[in-house]
Formats: sequence, C-alpha cells, structure tokens
Amino acid sequence: MAVTRSRSRPLSVRPLPEPAQEPRGADVTRERLLHAAHDLLYERMGRPASVSEICARAEVNVAMVKYCFGSKDGLLDALLERVLGHLSDEIAHLAEADLPPGEKLRRHVAEIVRNYVRYPYVNRLMSERLMSMEPDAVDRTAAAFAVPARDWYAKVLDDGRRSEGWREIDPTLFFFTVVGVCEFLFVGRALLERGFDERLDAELVERFAAHATELVVSGVSPGSGAPAPRPTRAR
Amino acid sequence: MAVTRSRSRPLSVRPLPEPAQEPRGADVTRERLLHAAHDLLYERMGRPASVSEICARAEVNVAMVKYCFGSKDGLLDALLERVLGHLSDEIAHLAEADLPPGEKLRRHVAEIVRNYVRYPYVNRLMSERLMSMEPDAVDRTAAAFAVPARDWYAKVLDDGRRSEGWREIDPTLFFFTVVGVCEFLFVGRALLERGFDERLDAELVERFAAHATELVVSGVSPGSGAPAPRPTRAR
Repeated sequence: MAVTRSRSRPLSVRPLPEPAQEPRGADVTRERLLHAAHDLLYERMGRPASVSEICARAEVNVAMVKYCFGSKDGLLDALLERVLGHLSDEIAHLAEADLPPGEKLRRHVAEIVRNYVRYPYVNRLMSERLMSMEPDAVDRTAAAFAVPARDWYAKVLDDGRRSEGWREIDPTLFFFTVVGVCEFLFVGRALLERGFDERLDAELVERFAAHATELVVSGVSPGSGAPAPRPTRAR
Repeated sequence: MAVTRSRSRPLSVRPLPEPAQEPRGADVTRERLLHAAHDLLYERMGRPASVSEICARAEVNVAMVKYCFGSKDGLLDALLERVLGHLSDEIAHLAEADLPPGEKLRRHVAEIVRNYVRYPYVNRLMSERLMSMEPDAVDRTAAAFAVPARDWYAKVLDDGRRSEGWREIDPTLFFFTVVGVCEFLFVGRALLERGFDERLDAELVERFAAHATELVVSGVSPGSGAPAPRPTRAR
C-alpha cells in the first residue's frame, strides 16, 4: 500500500429509482412496498428482510404483498427489475451519446460498479433469483437488463472493431465477463476487508471503477501477450 | 451465431480432489462426508443438500457431522477449502513453471473457469459463505485461495510489467476482477440458457475459457482506447 488514508469517505445512500409514471391507486402501495424493501435491504447490506418487516416499514397490511406482487419473490423480482431497468436506461442514454466506443464502454463499466454500491443488495438478490432457475425471475432479469446490455455490446464491440481495431468478441460471453468484472468485489467484500485488510469506502470504489474500466477497455483491444486460442464462433 | 453445432458435448464429472495424506481413523469418516457432500451438490448443481441426505449418502451416523466438522457449515467450509486448495496447488505449480507471464496467466484463468465446471456448487457455496460474513468461513477462504492467489498475481503482474510492458495493476483489485471474469457465467447460467438460448456444454466452456483468458491477458497489456483515470495507488 502506497498512500496513507487519513479518513475513510463513507459510501453515499441512493434512493430507489422512481417509476416512469407517477403511481396511482394500488400502484401507490406497490411503490411503498418497493421503497421499504429497498431501504431495509440497503440497511442490511443485502441480508434478508421478512415480509412482515417490509410491510411494517411500508405501513401497509401484509396481505398487500400477495395482492400487489403475488408473493415475496414477486416483490423482490420487481425490485431487481427496477434497479436493473435503471442500468438499461443508462445504456439507452449512452447508445445515443456522441462518444468513441472506448469511452462509452468505460462509462458503462463504471456505472455498473457504482450501481452495486447504490444497491448493495443487487448482487445477492440477482444471484439467488438466477440460481433458483425460476423461469419468471430469469426472464424478467433477461428482459430488464441482460438482453438490452448484450444487444448494445454487440453494437459497441462492432463499432470498436471497425474504428479502433478491437478484437472480435462474442457479445453474449462479453455480457458475463463485464458483469463478473464488476460484481465479485461486492460478493467478496468480506475477503477484501478481512483477508486483505482494505475498506470498501468511496475511495476504494472509485479506484476499483478505474481498475475495472481499464481492464475491460484494454481487454477488448489487441493484447501484446502470447498468441491465444481464438473463439471459434462470434456473433 | 455462425457455426451450427450438431450435438452438445456433455460436461465431464470430476471427483473431489483427494487429501494430501491417506486418511486414517476419524479422517476416514470425514472424507466420506466430504465426498458425499461433493456428489450430492454436484448432482444438484449446487442446490442445497440436508445433513441427513449427506449422511445417508456417506452411510454415516448424522452425529458424525458435528463430531468431525462442528456443524453443517463447518462441513461445507471444509469442502470449499478442499476445492479452493486445489486451485492454490495449481498456482504453486504454475509459479514454478518456466513460462512467460502471459502464458501463466492464461493457464490460470482457464483453470479457474474449468474449476467452476468441475465443482458447480463452488460459486453458490463461496458466495453464501462470504456473504454470511462469518469470520471463520471468510478466513478459511482467504487462507486457502484468496491470499495465495493475490500474492502470486503481484509477482506475475510485476514480471509482466518488466518483461512485457504490462500496465501497473493493483493485485488485490485484480484478484476480484479475475475471479469475477470467470465466475458470473456460472452464477448466471439460467440467463445464458433462457435469455440467450445457449447451452453450457463442453464446447461453450472452452469457448468461454478462451474468451476470458484473452480478455484478462489483453486487459493487463496497455490498451489502445481513450486515456483513462489511472489508479492512484498500486502495490
């Protein structure tokens, strides 16, 4: 470690992204439940909250979870969908921006890293819902984030290949490596803090965002290492 | 998709790595429990197995879990430690090999990818045990794998910087990005199969291993993209 840190900058709290339209009627209750679940999971760094705790925080009758979302898993899927939809909105915004492909990719990777800080329950929730293999949860995650991201990667990688000489890269596999680059620090936070004696504070997050963006952007450029087996298929 | 695949090559089953020494006395029971847990978790793709199911498979009295491991979590930690220890042995082997740093890194990344196939329960188990923040589980994962890997990365990155002009990279942050690159495909397998209509078969695993190794090895080389914020600290 080179630089001494005089104090640790805490991570800032970010509220749940608002829905596209002002909620009315039953949607008001739905929003209160989503915000209560976000607040509780945020406070607990992703450790579970019960339906009755979420309803108590939302000041809503426990029957409303079933009414609004079908089940607790339905509520958690809707929460995950909201947070991932925010990332997809960022992608749509970046897609329109007049920036070179490397800079777009850089901003996108930093945005995913910061999203894990703003929504520290996302990695656990997403892993659990994906590993449950419950078809509805998987399809919602795919539609809210994975498919729009993969489709955008196909375009950015193609732009970079033509304008910057980037390598030919399969955008589906790239989806998994980009998310993986960003997420494991947050899954393995306990290793960072106990194993490596670092703190996940604002300074480390920015240092990690710079590290992750540079690894990905250098990673799509032709490497100077030894020749490698080339992927046999590319989209 | 470019190439049609006539058939899907299934993934091969790999037994649990054996302990360094032939087990004796109570260690025989310990080994039977570890192998039974490995077999059951393998068959279930990481979905949980109960203590009584593990003991029935091991043909061992349920009291032996407490006797040998203290608890079910102790048994799962010992299993995780065994599998991660196998990766550390591979690192020690690579460290001695007379190969350029890029080739060492390439073999290491491919080995982590294949390890997730051989031990498909490792990502779920490691995530759960790390996110539990249970100090003993975290410390065992750190000692079995994270610290040896990070220390080896420091050396390989330093060799690559001197002999190949690699960028200056923080080995602690690199630990998280390398593991993340390899693991998220396995966490998100349901997205791969439902969202992207691909199959996690032997062909895809090898294609992914080539993709991941090339991303990491190109990633440590100087990129051709736009200038980036440089990490402010490096080890």
